[in-house]
Amino acid sequence: MRTGGPAGCAGGQPDPAQDKTGRGNGGRGRGKLTVIGTGPGNLEHLSRRALQALAEAEVVVGYKTYIGLIASLLNDKEVVSTGMTREIERCELAIDRARQGAAVALVSSGDPGVYGMAGPALELLARENALTEIEVEIIPGITSATAAAALMGAPLMHDFVVISLSDLLTPWEIIEKRLDLAARGDFVIVLYNPASRKRTRQVQAAREILLACKGPQTPVGIVRNAGREGEEIILTDLDKMLAYRVDMFTVVIIGNSHTYSAGNYLITPRGYRV
Amino acid sequence: MRTGGPAGCAGGQPDPAQDKTGRGNGGRGRGKLTVIGTGPGNLEHLSRRALQALAEAEVVVGYKTYIGLIASLLNDKEVVSTGMTREIERCELAIDRARQGAAVALVSSGDPGVYGMAGPALELLARENALTEIEVEIIPGITSATAAAALMGAPLMHDFVVISLSDLLTPWEIIEKRLDLAARGDFVIVLYNPASRKRTRQVQAAREILLACKGPQTPVGIVRNAGREGEEIILTDLDKMLAYRVDMFTVVIIGNSHTYSAGNYLITPRGYRV
Repeated sequence: MRTGGPAGCAGGQPDPAQDKTGRGNGGRGRGKLTVIGTGPGNLEHLSRRALQALAEAEVVVGYKTYIGLIASLLNDKEVVSTGMTREIERCELAIDRARQGAAVALVSSGDPGVYGMAGPALELLARENALTEIEVEIIPGITSATAAAALMGAPLMHDFVVISLSDLLTPWEIIEKRLDLAARGDFVIVLYNPASRKRTRQVQAAREILLACKGPQTPVGIVRNAGREGEEIILTDLDKMLAYRVDMFTVVIIGNSHTYSAGNYLITPRGYRV
Repeated sequence: MRTGGPAGCAGGQPDPAQDKTGRGNGGRGRGKLTVIGTGPGNLEHLSRRALQALAEAEVVVGYKTYIGLIASLLNDKEVVSTGMTREIERCELAIDRARQGAAVALVSSGDPGVYGMAGPALELLARENALTEIEVEIIPGITSATAAAALMGAPLMHDFVVISLSDLLTPWEIIEKRLDLAARGDFVIVLYNPASRKRTRQVQAAREILLACKGPQTPVGIVRNAGREGEEIILTDLDKMLAYRVDMFTVVIIGNSHTYSAGNYLITPRGYRV
């Protein structure tokens, strides 16, 4: 077994993994927690499975802004909504109701497994050794990276990284290091949570880090409110990207060294001879 | 303007980007090309927009295996299917039919913008200066990374990279470098196209590169045929991952240094206090 690693590498792994197959979930009949990805917000981008699971739910729990986007699907269901940053509270509420026997839908915009609600919900159940007590299903959704990319053309056609610029839960030094490594690897880079009303410095710092490695003319796409009211699509470059508004409803995609703009599109070639 | 960069960084940008907003596509009435992401393959994971666009299409073009998965939705439409590696031919066929005035759906499994058909279709249109000649719409889909992640629990809850191990179109040296940088950044790592019948060496080499930085007990999830017949979900670790079958229908997710297994799930904490 190798345990060491070059300097700069992360440490080892505290929890040994085990080989396992299948889900084998007990607890049917004691309620169900369905964590649903609702996609970018436009009802057209929900999957049939997500729609079906919403229809089957007795209780729907979510962040109030996103609950608003799917309100027309909720009819006379019991709806529990809370504000931003209250993710753990929403998970606890949803789990409690499922334990009481209800069919509970915990909704998450985009994909629930990408900075969404699937993680904290499972973490809470794991902490309480309750993973088999209720039935759990994670329903994937279209994540902002690919929803935004579709509006720009095809910027994600080659290897890419997704990095959240929010340093509320992640030390900024780690985010900085990841930005630098992503630039050195010539990855296409997708930035989630580039800025909020109070957090405006991070996107400026990120741009500086990327400019150390990438040219100022590197294509950048900025999408606000993908698929929702107020949708904005900006195609610009690293040099000028700070001239445009970014916020918590914005995704920024920075091209690799081969990405180019053509008409109203950003295209990253995969290497086909066209 | 900064033009230089540290050693190891990629070169500059040959095509200057321009600031643009909106799509402003002319050419309506001269046919339409819709590039549709059909998700992991299970019809339940298609979005309502994808279903609607398929219903509106007169001609459906795709790789025969994926056409087979959505055959029940195609009724009496004209279907054009070709084999693997004939992506450019399929794009050309689809574009030709759209130019002749047809409503053409070019289908792509997963998301069409992630190693899918959106890139080559737009590249071909750009090369021919034909981007405004027909109406183009890219419809996102659930990509394999998040479909597979949902089946494993929540392994993608923190910054992640997507890397294809196929060296048919990308030099292996670039893939190796990206794997190394991704490991150094402690990203969760998603491997697409880990192996094919002829390509079996790459996943072994990738594991060696990752082991230089990540511990042998780092959790690894392997999903074959996500959401399709023959679905397999394996939770294992870097040490033992080669004991399982991987192929072109497999996605491999390698955790970061905080990823742990709990029951039948892989969970990557985001940093919430749970």
